[in-house]
Amino acid sequence: MTSTIDLNMVNAYIPGQADVGAETAATISRRDRLLGPAYRLMYERPLHIVKGEGAWLIDSEGRRFLDIYNNVTSLGHCHPRVVEAICRQVATLATNTRYLHDTILELAERLLATVPETELAHLMLTCTGSEANDLAYRMAKVRTGETGIIVTETAYHGFTDAVSQFSPSLGVSVDLGAHVRLVPAPSAYHADGADLADRFTRDVEAAIADLKRHGIKPAMLIVDTVFTSDGVLPGPSGFLAGAVAAIHKAGGLFVADEVQPGFGRTGEHMWGFQRHRLTPDIVTMGKPMGNGQPIAGLLVTNDAVARFGRDSRYFNTFAGNTVSCAAAVAVLDTIEQEKLIAHAATIGDQLRDGIAALADRHEAIGDVRGVGMFVGVELVSNRETREPDRATTSRVVNILRDKGILLSACAKGHNVLKIRPPLVLSSEQVDMVVQGIDEALAEAMSAGAD
Amino acid sequence: MTSTIDLNMVNAYIPGQADVGAETAATISRRDRLLGPAYRLMYERPLHIVKGEGAWLIDSEGRRFLDIYNNVTSLGHCHPRVVEAICRQVATLATNTRYLHDTILELAERLLATVPETELAHLMLTCTGSEANDLAYRMAKVRTGETGIIVTETAYHGFTDAVSQFSPSLGVSVDLGAHVRLVPAPSAYHADGADLADRFTRDVEAAIADLKRHGIKPAMLIVDTVFTSDGVLPGPSGFLAGAVAAIHKAGGLFVADEVQPGFGRTGEHMWGFQRHRLTPDIVTMGKPMGNGQPIAGLLVTNDAVARFGRDSRYFNTFAGNTVSCAAAVAVLDTIEQEKLIAHAATIGDQLRDGIAALADRHEAIGDVRGVGMFVGVELVSNRETREPDRATTSRVVNILRDKGILLSACAKGHNVLKIRPPLVLSSEQVDMVVQGIDEALAEAMSAGAD
Repeated sequence: MTSTIDLNMVNAYIPGQADVGAETAATISRRDRLLGPAYRLMYERPLHIVKGEGAWLIDSEGRRFLDIYNNVTSLGHCHPRVVEAICRQVATLATNTRYLHDTILELAERLLATVPETELAHLMLTCTGSEANDLAYRMAKVRTGETGIIVTETAYHGFTDAVSQFSPSLGVSVDLGAHVRLVPAPSAYHADGADLADRFTRDVEAAIADLKRHGIKPAMLIVDTVFTSDGVLPGPSGFLAGAVAAIHKAGGLFVADEVQPGFGRTGEHMWGFQRHRLTPDIVTMGKPMGNGQPIAGLLVTNDAVARFGRDSRYFNTFAGNTVSCAAAVAVLDTIEQEKLIAHAATIGDQLRDGIAALADRHEAIGDVRGVGMFVGVELVSNRETREPDRATTSRVVNILRDKGILLSACAKGHNVLKIRPPLVLSSEQVDMVVQGIDEALAEAMSAGAD
Repeated sequence: MTSTIDLNMVNAYIPGQADVGAETAATISRRDRLLGPAYRLMYERPLHIVKGEGAWLIDSEGRRFLDIYNNVTSLGHCHPRVVEAICRQVATLATNTRYLHDTILELAERLLATVPETELAHLMLTCTGSEANDLAYRMAKVRTGETGIIVTETAYHGFTDAVSQFSPSLGVSVDLGAHVRLVPAPSAYHADGADLADRFTRDVEAAIADLKRHGIKPAMLIVDTVFTSDGVLPGPSGFLAGAVAAIHKAGGLFVADEVQPGFGRTGEHMWGFQRHRLTPDIVTMGKPMGNGQPIAGLLVTNDAVARFGRDSRYFNTFAGNTVSCAAAVAVLDTIEQEKLIAHAATIGDQLRDGIAALADRHEAIGDVRGVGMFVGVELVSNRETREPDRATTSRVVNILRDKGILLSACAKGHNVLKIRPPLVLSSEQVDMVVQGIDEALAEAMSAGAD
């Protein structure tokens, strides 16, 4: 069994920290032996899941957990429409993009119709968000002839060799590229009243200047448009415009990483960047795109892809396969027919308001923020100094797990509860979540005071 | 519509070269508009496929094509066992590796049982072969502290930013890394009687020396163990041992890229490297692993992964998901229960012998080679000089397509027919293929003589 203590990963299982029971211990040991030392589990006492339905995950003992952390199965686990689409297509044809096929074209038309006001003109498909960001970087390099990259200080964009070099949230043991610059996350809570837009623009300009001082010009600024791993920081509508203008002025592209906020999660639009009234050169997407089926992709302007397309053909055996495309079309159908964007707004407000109201009796709640079905709850040991309270955050996450509610944490200080329920979460389920957080905070503080 | 003429990609559709008919032209035009300029189609007249069954693909007009090019759906299109496994699992649970789940452990046990004689100890999962090779390189860098890479001159290992830099078959417009060295493909046909093992070993040693002369030490030698894109060059059993010893002596890892030869295609073993009685430090796999479902992965020694595992946790949202793992287990079941490795040997021999017999009446056939269900047919304009005949090869591929048989070409000279049928190909289907190639060669030569 690995004895690694992972100081970098939020909410990682740490062997020996809690009694997990004999059966779970045996499974973990078997897993360590079979999958090796690079894999991690979540929670002090990892879950052995056997079934999913709607917002629920069910473990091997039949216990039900409300899954408000999973923005992959964003329509709920095993959504019948997606299951049906996959089963129909997998029994008919599973093949690649070197043949003509209608479903990929339907998917492209549908996705491009979500951005009619922009110059985004083409869909390209990958299997993972990491591949999408990796391909975005390849295209940005070809388009600009440059290599520099600007990201936020706790950004996560993926795990390929290139992308891990601009994913600082992987921790200090994973080297950043010499061509990568970090800018502070745009946190209103920690801005001391400064104008967030001005500050972020200046930070990006300074990063561009620093790259240039080292003989490197920028290929791209890439941001998750709700800054998930930085602590869920949607920020005011429009505040990104200055930074985007700055990167464009310096000759670089702006890449909107919509892997987390995309597909209606913000409750306002299909994509997070649409809050900012700007056109990215490239939009990357992933997680909820197939409600669990591996599919991800990019929307690109003609300008961003033209030279890459001419010189460097793109083929990915599994990407754009007929089955994954059928799943993605079913996801779009469901978002539309179940009116999930509007639902995400309403239920998201209820969730945020409910948690915000807990601040009256829980001093640890420093900030409650978010947009739509994406909520961040920043826990602090002192509301004046806004000191991150990592220990309480970890306790709250694990107490909630024991109460049957699954979420996790994020941010540089590991002190922000990260809540991203399936878009189908009901009002009653919101009440369960709010009550659970209320009780967990009370228990965590009393445990912390021991 | 793109007007690119792709000189780098073998068997690419080139707009305007042939009359494709109004309906296909309209679909291609719609596709170019929606997917942009980086996508390519195959054949002079691209196929619009709507259904697959067994070894057959069926187009939108109901025409049936014998698919002997598809080593993804290696059990045949829409194999009922895999369809059933996917449909059962997708309706039950589709989730990730941060929870405990039994199927991924079963998959790991089954795959590790295929290499009992080696030190390969752990399975890691990705979604694509490119991701597997990208992760192999990340681990090789961490393990060795070095960056150098040696590959063959027309190798293809994938499309990520890092992997495209060591995939010379992508063409001259995609830059190789400064840390990458190419060695000649180990072709017995072009060896002029030289010892293939000695020559390949010396070439790898020279590449190591050249890297060192430039201040770079090798992290890895990576080869497709049947050298697919180099022209299908399985070579004599054991000939790789010297090159592997050389890279180990220089401190680098040996990575066996089994994306093409893996899962029994060689008709001898589960993996291509097993022909050579050696243990890779890392084995990468992909294409046929889920019979079309996106899943790929790596087998790694404890030594190769230990430090990476400690410092750089690995998580990939979709990789190792329960549905893809269920598909992969069904693939292993099917290979075993339908005795497909033995079948690949028998039918592969029949296929190779049948094509080899055609050499008596077709001067263009310079060499017929392969192992199991992987056959390369090298076409030359002169048997003495062994001059590659790219034009005839292209004609043969497209004539066969018109006859209802799908294959493609490969190698530096674009002059090797690449034949990799589903492992379930029948003896009667082999007869169809041999007869088709016979007729196509006759037509191609008569057209070429016009």
